[in-house]
Amino acid sequence: MATGDRGFGLFRGEGRAYGWLMSLLRIYSDTPFDEPALTLLRDGVAAHELVFPAKMAESVLGQSLAGPEFAQVEVAFGQPQVEAVLASDKLRWLHVSTAGYTRYDSAEFREAMRSRGIPVTNSSSVYADACVDQFMSFLMAQSRQLLPNLASRCRPGSEEWFQLRESAVPLRGQSLVILGYGTIARRLIEVLKPYDMQITAVRRSPRGDEPVSVVTPDAMAGPLSTADHVVNILPDNTDSDRFVDATRLACMKRGAVFYNIGRGRTVDQQALADALQSRHLAAAWLDVTDPEPLPDDHVLRGCDQCFIAPHTAGGHRAESMTLVRHFLANLRRFEAGQPLLDRIM
Amino acid sequence: MATGDRGFGLFRGEGRAYGWLMSLLRIYSDTPFDEPALTLLRDGVAAHELVFPAKMAESVLGQSLAGPEFAQVEVAFGQPQVEAVLASDKLRWLHVSTAGYTRYDSAEFREAMRSRGIPVTNSSSVYADACVDQFMSFLMAQSRQLLPNLASRCRPGSEEWFQLRESAVPLRGQSLVILGYGTIARRLIEVLKPYDMQITAVRRSPRGDEPVSVVTPDAMAGPLSTADHVVNILPDNTDSDRFVDATRLACMKRGAVFYNIGRGRTVDQQALADALQSRHLAAAWLDVTDPEPLPDDHVLRGCDQCFIAPHTAGGHRAESMTLVRHFLANLRRFEAGQPLLDRIM
Repeated sequence: MATGDRGFGLFRGEGRAYGWLMSLLRIYSDTPFDEPALTLLRDGVAAHELVFPAKMAESVLGQSLAGPEFAQVEVAFGQPQVEAVLASDKLRWLHVSTAGYTRYDSAEFREAMRSRGIPVTNSSSVYADACVDQFMSFLMAQSRQLLPNLASRCRPGSEEWFQLRESAVPLRGQSLVILGYGTIARRLIEVLKPYDMQITAVRRSPRGDEPVSVVTPDAMAGPLSTADHVVNILPDNTDSDRFVDATRLACMKRGAVFYNIGRGRTVDQQALADALQSRHLAAAWLDVTDPEPLPDDHVLRGCDQCFIAPHTAGGHRAESMTLVRHFLANLRRFEAGQPLLDRIM
Repeated sequence: MATGDRGFGLFRGEGRAYGWLMSLLRIYSDTPFDEPALTLLRDGVAAHELVFPAKMAESVLGQSLAGPEFAQVEVAFGQPQVEAVLASDKLRWLHVSTAGYTRYDSAEFREAMRSRGIPVTNSSSVYADACVDQFMSFLMAQSRQLLPNLASRCRPGSEEWFQLRESAVPLRGQSLVILGYGTIARRLIEVLKPYDMQITAVRRSPRGDEPVSVVTPDAMAGPLSTADHVVNILPDNTDSDRFVDATRLACMKRGAVFYNIGRGRTVDQQALADALQSRHLAAAWLDVTDPEPLPDDHVLRGCDQCFIAPHTAGGHRAESMTLVRHFLANLRRFEAGQPLLDRIM
């Protein structure tokens, strides 16, 4: 077998930058893990040293205020301050603890990481299943009109009963546009395979290896105008800011349904409210908003077909454990000079 | 090509019984179709004669009171009275307008149809997608705790937010027991394929060609005791009456979730309420109950993790059209002496 050769090949290729890695590492971790996850992390890093900031991040989503200790670490796992990452001359790898990575997603940051050979990975594999499950719960609830069904006590054969039955639309054969193509979209396409849907993904740089039809944003008007469902999985960066605006909402066909499991800032929320109030869109299901939570008096709170979850799409039982396991799997690869999982820069 | 031979072969086999079929048929139809579906039916039966009862069935689920006209028909499409079917000496084919067929599902009826060579078909293909979609809306809502999420306005990082995220369980790798294996179960298994679940189906007579592990009811205690989810798709007959009783509910593991998209009479509802109130079961999602609707003061209405839809699982947009199309496809097969779709007897 060529295992030895492959390993050597890797070490000469991507692995070369990590040659110094045989030595022990200082690993910064700022996520407020529960005790079992912290134990798993301590055990998993073995002889490497864990470094914690004086003040941990508030949650897996929050940035930590890296103190002077950050300048000494070679690996960062969590959400360290952008400025601290840019200022460090020791850092060799940044592993972001979320699927989204807005604070790092700038041309300047990318260029700094590229020029200094610092790989940046995220945790999208950890959240892909849960994000897709959350979207599927929205999609199926919409397709079956779950909420009015659960609220009804109608008699079979009654007018209300016929209306409820008629309001459900089989998912099979429906059309879907996915805004943003990455780990989550790939998993979503797998999950939807049995439904024979017409799926188009919108991606800045199509690579030709996607399992569905892919268009760039400037060619999305056509697919958008016929889609029954449009799901937004865009990360939040300067390109995606208010990407779903009045013009693009107007492109969607009357009666389409919009879903957002990406980031709130990628949507013009007033334009979305207008589209819902004019009944141009039949409904919107939002896991993310801007801000979070949306104030009680926000216009979207008053739209009766707008359903809002409090940014829980990626969450799942024992999430901290999955997150730590994913980091440790990547740490083993980093130690061995192998290609990292979920590399984003 | 062997088309001619195949046709002849069919005619000599199953087709032989329909040899007289070259003549025109009188077709009884008792479903209260809307105008587009009725037009489709009239156009589709072409030169055959449609016969309607004086009083149509109340809905697709309801039985019609067949009058003297029934004795003259060769084909019945709908829900004619059992007595009228048994009394007819002209009837050559019964096509039931639902997936369930309780009123015809007795040993006596089966024997009568068998001895007189009358094939009985149902409409399970028409309802399979919609039933499976409804179940998936239940399963995903449960897995993601959709209702508390939509009701929450919590702040990311708050205690409530962590609890909501922790309460969601990824569907991938979970285990499922399906009670009743037919058209709907087959479709469900297809839809769940991407989730790598451990699926066991319970079936009276396993045939060995099922794509998942299958056990008979007397061997179901093992799979039941480890399943995260148990879905009941049993038809209602003397064998299935209160099939899900206190003993079988006790077999389920603590924290399991029960779903019913079959028929209400197959469940001991008091035992189910007990299992919910003692928290032995985490939740129940019921599309069917006994009676329908369940009275407001029924014990299941008081169980806070019991979610009830008003028997809408099979319903879908333009359902009448799908139902008529399915009947007409079977009529073409009947005319040609070909094997019928969804044959149940």
